[in-house]
Parts: sequence; structure tokens; C-alpha cells
Amino acid sequence: MSHNLLQGKKGIIFGALDEQSIAWKTAESVCAQGGKIVLTNAPVALRMGTINALAEKLEAPVIAADATKLEDLENLVDQTLAHFGGKIDFVLHSIGMSVNVRKGKHYTDLNHDWMAKGWDVSAVSFHKLMQTLYKKDAMNEWGSIVALSYIAAQRTFPNYNDMADNKAYLESIARSFGYFMGKDKKVRVNTISQSPTLTTAGQGVKGLDGFLTYAEKTSPLGNATAKECADYTVTLFSDLTRKVTLQNLYHDGGFSNVGVSQDVIDALQ
Amino acid sequence: MSHNLLQGKKGIIFGALDEQSIAWKTAESVCAQGGKIVLTNAPVALRMGTINALAEKLEAPVIAADATKLEDLENLVDQTLAHFGGKIDFVLHSIGMSVNVRKGKHYTDLNHDWMAKGWDVSAVSFHKLMQTLYKKDAMNEWGSIVALSYIAAQRTFPNYNDMADNKAYLESIARSFGYFMGKDKKVRVNTISQSPTLTTAGQGVKGLDGFLTYAEKTSPLGNATAKECADYTVTLFSDLTRKVTLQNLYHDGGFSNVGVSQDVIDALQ
Amino acid sequence: MSHNLLQGKKGIIFGALDEQSIAWKTAESVCAQGGKIVLTNAPVALRMGTINALAEKLEAPVIAADATKLEDLENLVDQTLAHFGGKIDFVLHSIGMSVNVRKGKHYTDLNHDWMAKGWDVSAVSFHKLMQTLYKKDAMNEWGSIVALSYIAAQRTFPNYNDMADNKAYLESIARSFGYFMGKDKKVRVNTISQSPTLTTAGQGVKGLDGFLTYAEKTSPLGNATAKECADYTVTLFSDLTRKVTLQNLYHDGGFSNVGVSQDVIDALQ
Amino acid sequence: MSHNLLQGKKGIIFGALDEQSIAWKTAESVCAQGGKIVLTNAPVALRMGTINALAEKLEAPVIAADATKLEDLENLVDQTLAHFGGKIDFVLHSIGMSVNVRKGKHYTDLNHDWMAKGWDVSAVSFHKLMQTLYKKDAMNEWGSIVALSYIAAQRTFPNYNDMADNKAYLESIARSFGYFMGKDKKVRVNTISQSPTLTTAGQGVKGLDGFLTYAEKTSPLGNATAKECADYTVTLFSDLTRKVTLQNLYHDGGFSNVGVSQDVIDALQ
Repeated sequence: MSHNLLQGKKGIIFGALDEQSIAWKTAESVCAQGGKIVLTNAPVALRMGTINALAEKLEAPVIAADATKLEDLENLVDQTLAHFGGKIDFVLHSIGMSVNVRKGKHYTDLNHDWMAKGWDVSAVSFHKLMQTLYKKDAMNEWGSIVALSYIAAQRTFPNYNDMADNKAYLESIARSFGYFMGKDKKVRVNTISQSPTLTTAGQGVKGLDGFLTYAEKTSPLGNATAKECADYTVTLFSDLTRKVTLQNLYHDGGFSNVGVSQDVIDALQ
Repeated sequence: MSHNLLQGKKGIIFGALDEQSIAWKTAESVCAQGGKIVLTNAPVALRMGTINALAEKLEAPVIAADATKLEDLENLVDQTLAHFGGKIDFVLHSIGMSVNVRKGKHYTDLNHDWMAKGWDVSAVSFHKLMQTLYKKDAMNEWGSIVALSYIAAQRTFPNYNDMADNKAYLESIARSFGYFMGKDKKVRVNTISQSPTLTTAGQGVKGLDGFLTYAEKTSPLGNATAKECADYTVTLFSDLTRKVTLQNLYHDGGFSNVGVSQDVIDALQ
Repeated sequence: MSHNLLQGKKGIIFGALDEQSIAWKTAESVCAQGGKIVLTNAPVALRMGTINALAEKLEAPVIAADATKLEDLENLVDQTLAHFGGKIDFVLHSIGMSVNVRKGKHYTDLNHDWMAKGWDVSAVSFHKLMQTLYKKDAMNEWGSIVALSYIAAQRTFPNYNDMADNKAYLESIARSFGYFMGKDKKVRVNTISQSPTLTTAGQGVKGLDGFLTYAEKTSPLGNATAKECADYTVTLFSDLTRKVTLQNLYHDGGFSNVGVSQDVIDALQ
Repeated sequence: MSHNLLQGKKGIIFGALDEQSIAWKTAESVCAQGGKIVLTNAPVALRMGTINALAEKLEAPVIAADATKLEDLENLVDQTLAHFGGKIDFVLHSIGMSVNVRKGKHYTDLNHDWMAKGWDVSAVSFHKLMQTLYKKDAMNEWGSIVALSYIAAQRTFPNYNDMADNKAYLESIARSFGYFMGKDKKVRVNTISQSPTLTTAGQGVKGLDGFLTYAEKTSPLGNATAKECADYTVTLFSDLTRKVTLQNLYHDGGFSNVGVSQDVIDALQ
């Protein structure tokens, strides 16, 4: 049901690869609430995915940008401002990739060049994006920036590999840059720490099935879906959450604050 | 601006003393978003405050209840269910009081009977409330319970006194009971850790002025107001945040994640 | 192996019930490192336990004190100062009890009088103890106070019941009073959050076996034993940790920062 | 006073630049407690500093190693094992550097190549080091690895710049690799989050004076010195802390858990 919660708001959605993507669902939810968006993704992701179908449905332009390249981000922001004829109100950063995960390298045997690549894509891109928005003064006051994270940034999960460290860096950038975005631009910056989600990206993580089951059994409300994450993101883009900033917000059915569930204890016996 | 975000939802608001109260503002915001409410407060607070003006404006019944008494809470829930002709969707617990603070006892010289009284009012009342709701199966699935807390539950603030310990207990109850509310009733339970707010209750805290200034200088977006807290609470009562539970959510302009601000460093020199 | 790490240091150990107690092991480790101690426990615990054997072995006086009674604590501190002929250097608070746990009341069906009793014994006793030490100026500068806690203070564990909330309150007292102990007395105050341990007290927790197995499978170094906790406490009493204060210190083989272990995932499949 | 707490233990100390260095003090404290060490630093740091005086005093070999180069780390570990004729028991990683800080680039205007360089030196070096130790099976069971961190990893401090993000990544590596070090080698891995310290490295941080004053005023026990940090590290290398792992341990006079001190409030008025 639409409440026009984002009526009059404009923004950029990164990372909508296909229908399973959280960014895809967020794009749909944002538009359903009256928001206007520009879709963006890396050129290679644009070729792999099906974003054009989404763009057509939502009447949103697609602007290619490799989020590791400042010039691409500058072009994206310039084109977006031109498209909307003014500043924007929200941004979703949903970008993550580990070459070591893809290639099956164990955390105790990492290739450090691949580590650097994954860090650049998954974490530094968030800094580059905000630096670009900041320098171009591209955001309206009381705007909202959200990046997607995962609890592996705080606690160890086997097989999550160097993505854990990348997410820790990402969350730190949210705090570090969020301070200046708040002070200087009155813009808030938060990360959502989402339940493990069966997206195309998530499928790369080894043993994800076993882990999804564990998370489902542990969370009092069960795992949060991509659609539910999209809804939650809408609240963070709305004017109802103006003073929430520098936070890492768990959207996980309660997983993060459960030590162990009775279901898991029972299953172990 | 109303988005009818709470259309069709019904609930109970504790603790609306006067126009400065966060609960007062929440009652207004909830109704503005289409929600229906029952107002409640302790008999003594009902006499001191001006809740009837609010009740009239919002067309909400006022039901007296001492939240430290199970029989009062049972009566409140029974009457509320009868009033609405069905289960409820949300509850706000905004109750806190320290006799030691009121009487000016220092934390190193507490009266432990007063400590017990403040603990009962400020924290145990939340358990008693949820136990009553749970036993009477009074809440709809995907309902939402929120209690107001303060960051003194995590870090020491001079003069916040035993309220700090009470808030720590309150937040623990939110997790402990939230587990069963989630598993058994599909209801979420969270606390909002709000900026220091100049309410009638807050005025009892010694040196609040100096501290408000410090918090304002530290928070990148400044302190959150009571009205902004009310707006945030609306999002937590809405269907857009269904999988957020067991969390302590900072609504504080970023205060909680700032080590020190440049303003404070400058002021110290 | 003794390193005389506590040579010349004197203190009080609460809660040595029998050989399984963490406090019992701590008494032994402290004395093995050259420390001198006074043993204390509630009169009822003194009758149930075998503390006299320990007292004889360690040449330590036993002074009965109900830690919920200020007069008992005052007497304990007076007698201790007289015994040592001067101020003390360390205190271990290892006291915890929930009537609701003992009587098998579920967390959603608590008896609130019992809740108050458990809170008083498990948490408020720590405040009363420190208030007594503070007022009597009983501790040497750079002294150290430690209380034992459990991770249920941060995350929900089924069956840990209202002890979770008591531990949250206890940890808050450590911070709140630790601030003044530090500023005014140069004394540090910390809690150790210990692995689940098969003590006589711990045996009251329903389903402890299943949980011990889970914790053992989750912790990279396995659960920490009572003896290891005693060793760790020795470091916190020593002069090597003078600037560690207001902390909750996990001593748990790494449990607290593991999201899930491969062993647990494997066992669930 | 020596307690021979590290009698028979051998290890590697990274980062002893000059007498102000925490690593320098740690080297002294470790040896005073009976430990044997190998000193190492980057070739450029070896030329700048005065490590040879320390090496002579402590009768410790100096082995140059650029901690960003796997081949240097492999050589270091090989030579160390040969020197001691067996496995080692402890390692201190005290390495940190931000080119952006040195060059005075603001966080909102970073050079991302410099960011990558600082990340590699300050954080990835810790992964490379542990990967080398792990592959060569270089550590005895119940060994201990410590890296130095700073609270900017959790909260924003103006001017700490991208070092904050580097420390967040470092702490994440400690958890991620600590899991496997624990499971597979029975070795513990922790970070110490130390008070701001006036080392030669720390002097690069702009506005450090103002911040040191703030931290001193906030911490109930005052800032922790480099020598005190060395003492604390000794306890983490000793057999008394065998079950402490995956932790970030604040050694800061209580700073981390103080919301605001009365001294700071007073100074603001």
C-alpha cells in the first residue's frame, strides 16, 4: 500500500542487478511511495542483469557508472542533477563483491590483490560516492544516504571471508563521512545490516544454505526478505527519520541480539 | 504531512503528561497518521498533567493505570480491547522516574528503597506490561512495542544517577521479552535511545542545561526533538519496519557514534 | 606457576560456595600469587557450602555478610580493614541468584516479588558494596573491583530468564559507580563476562547442558573454565592493568564475537 | 617489578621506532618479564629511528621487514624461528600510517591512492602477517597475537581521518583471522584500543593536543600511557589470559564508556 511517503523526493539507486536484488526491490518500493529515481550500476553488471525492464517499468533513466572510478561517479551525479533539474534527497549504495569469495580462496590463504579489488568495490566506492556528492553539493538538506551491510562486520561467520572486513570498513566510512555530511550538509548517513538474503550476489557465499537455515532458526521473527529491506529503507529516506544518523541498523528479525535460540539448542541434541 | 501510515492501527500510549512529553507528541503524530489510541498514565500523573485536553483533541479515552500494578495493567488492557473491539497493534512505554534524582541523592550515597521504587516504575513496569499483553494475547501479529531509553544505559553521564541502571534494565527486558514476543506472537519490541530532551520529567536531572549544550555541540545533526522522536516512533509502529526487533535504536542526531566533535575541542581551548 | 603478581595486595572474595565456584578458584589463584584475602558469603551459603576447608587452606578469615544488607557490608569492611590493618586493593563480587529460575517460572510468567529479590541479590548488592567501600574510603589507590557477569546481559538466551536483566543492571552499576570510583578514588571497576560454567549456581539454569555444548562448539578456543577465569581475574587485580576500567570483559574463548561456527552449521544439517 | 610472567616465551615486536613508541615500551616490558624477542620494522623506519640502541640493550636481533610484503614477512618468520630454534609465543603488531593524514588531506577530499597505501600498511599488513604465521605453523599452542587499535574505529573523531577506517578494518581482521587461529592453532588474537598517546606517529594527527586534553578530562583514570599499554600487553601475552580472544580491549582509563564527564561540562560553560 502506498502512503506517498517519498512524494517529491528524488535519488539514486545503485546495485539493482535482477529481481532478487535488494536494490531492485528498493527501487520499486521507493517509486511506489512517490519517489523518483535514477538507476545505476557498473557497465558489466548492466550487461549481465535485466535492469532495463525495471527502468522501463519505473520510468527511470539508467546511467552506467563504475563506482570505483571518480570520473564515472562525477558524471553520474552531474547527469542526475541535470535529469532532475535540482539536488537529490536520497542514495542507496548496494554494492559488494569479493574476488576471493568468487575464486574460492580461503581466508587463511587470500590473494591480497584480490582483497584490494574487493575492498575498492565494496567499501571505498562508498567514500568516493559521498566525496563526489559532497564536493558537488548535490544533496538537499535532510537528505538520506543508506548503504547495505552485514553483521559479519561485527562477528565472525565462516566463509564470509574478506567481505566481513570490507563491510567493517564500509560501516566505518558511514560514521566518518556521516559526521561531515551531517555537520556541513544536514544529510544523514546510515548502514542497514540486513539478514542473509538469497540474492544473486549472496549466492556466491559458500555454505549459504546452511547459514540461512541457522539464521532463520535464530531470529525470533525469521529472516528479513529483500522486499522488507526495501520497505525499511523507505522509512530511512522519509522525513520521519531525520535525526537518525551514523547508525548501523540491524534489519534481521532480531538475529543480532539473540545469543542462541531454543530451536538451535534442540537441533544440536 | 499525513501519509495515513497507521491507518487501521490501534494502540496504547503511556506517559503523556503535558505538551512537552514525548508521549504527548507521539499521540498526536500517531493520530495524524490515522492511528487510534488509548491514553494512559498513573493516577497521580493524570492529576498533575493536562492529558484531558489531549484526549479531547484526539478523541481518545483516558484510562488510569499505575504501571507498577499488574491489576491496573490487566484492567487497562481489558478496557482497551473492549474499546477497540479487538486486538491492538502498538504500544508506547514512556515511563521513567528516579526518587534519588528527585531528592538530590548522589549516586555514591543512594537510598536503596528509593532505588527499588525507581527501578519498579521505570523498568519493571515494562515487563509487567508485556507479560499482561502476552498472557491476554492482546496484540495482533506484526504489532510493535516501543519503550523510550537513553544512552546512559551504555555510557556514564554524571548526574543521570540510577536512571542509567534503570534504562539498562529496561533495554534488557526489551531483548528478553522481545524474544518471546517475536517467537510466540510475531510482535516486535524495541527501545528508542533518544537525545536528551527538555521534558518536564527531564528537568529533574541536575545540570541538564550544560549537558544539553554538550549534546547539541556533539551531534552532527543536533539534538533530536520530542516531535522528531514521535515521527520516528511512527515508523516503528508502521508495517514498513516489520523485521526490526530486539534493537536499541539511537535517535540522537548522531551523538552516540561521535567520539568528540570539533566544536567541543574548540570550546575546551 | 606463581609469579607473585599480587604480592602485598589484600582484598575480599565474595561467593566461594564450593570447589566448583569461580570465586573459590579465584581465592586459590589470588593466594597462589601472593595475595591475602578475606572470604565472605551469605550466612545461608556459609552453611550450605564448604568454605571452611578453603579458609583453612588459605589461612583466610571468613566473615559472614548478607550482601543485600548495608549493615552486614559495613561490618564486613570494618572487620576486613581491622584484620589487614589498612586499606584493601581488590574485591571480587561473584553473587547471583534468581528465585524465578529456581522455582521454574517462565520469563513470560514471572513473579515480580521474586524478580525484585533476585535483582537485589544479584545486582543491587554490587552497588551497596561499592557505596560502603566508597564511604569508608576502604580502598587503596589503583585498587581493582571485579564482578562476574554473563553475555545474556547483551543478548537473549532462552532459560537464562531474569538473570539476564540482573546482569545488565550489574554491568550498568559497574560503569556508573566505576566513574566515581575512578575520579575520586583512583580505583578501577570492571565486569568479566565469563563462559557458561558448570558451577553449583549455574546448574539451576534449565537446559544448561545443551547450551554448554552450543557454546563449546561456537567458541574457537572452547569454553573458559572456572580456573581460567580465576587466572584472568588475577591480571585484573594486578598492577599491570591499572588503566582498564568501566569495561565488560569477555572471557569466553571468543564466543561473543562469533556469529556462528562451522561446527554448528554442520550439526544443523 | 618483574614477575617473570613471560619466562620461556619468545616472540616478535613490530613497530618500535623510538623511545616514545608503544612497541618500544612493550619490548622493554616483555624482556623485563623474562620474554625473548626479535625486533622488526620497515627498512625506512629502521633508518629513521633508534632501534639499534634498544636492540643492544635487550640483546634482541633486528630483522628488517616491510609488513606490506609477503616475502619480507616470510623471511622474518623464517629467521625468527631459526633464531629461537623453535616456534614463537607472541606477536605485537604496532603499525599504522595514513598518507592522507601526513599530507593534510581532509576526509572529504581524500586521495584514494593514498587511502589504499595507508590501508595496506595499517591494516592489511596484519592479515599478511597472520597468514604467514598460519601457513608456516609458526606459533605454539596458546600463543597470543596483539595489534594496537584506537576507538576511532567505533566512533568519529575529527581529524583522525582515514586511520579510523583502517583501524575498523584491522579490528575486523583480528576477529576474522582470530577465528581460524583459535580453531586451528589454539592461538588467540586481540586488539588493544589504547588512549591517544603522544608518540612520534601520533604527532601527525592534526589537533592532537586539544584532543589529548579532552580525553584526559573525560577518562576517570586519565589517559593510559605507552608504558601502561606495554604492561597490559604483557598480561595478554601471559598464560593468565588464555581464553581471551577475538576481543577489542579498551585500555583507556575508562574513556570509552563515559558519555561525558563533569569536567567537560564545566569547561563548556
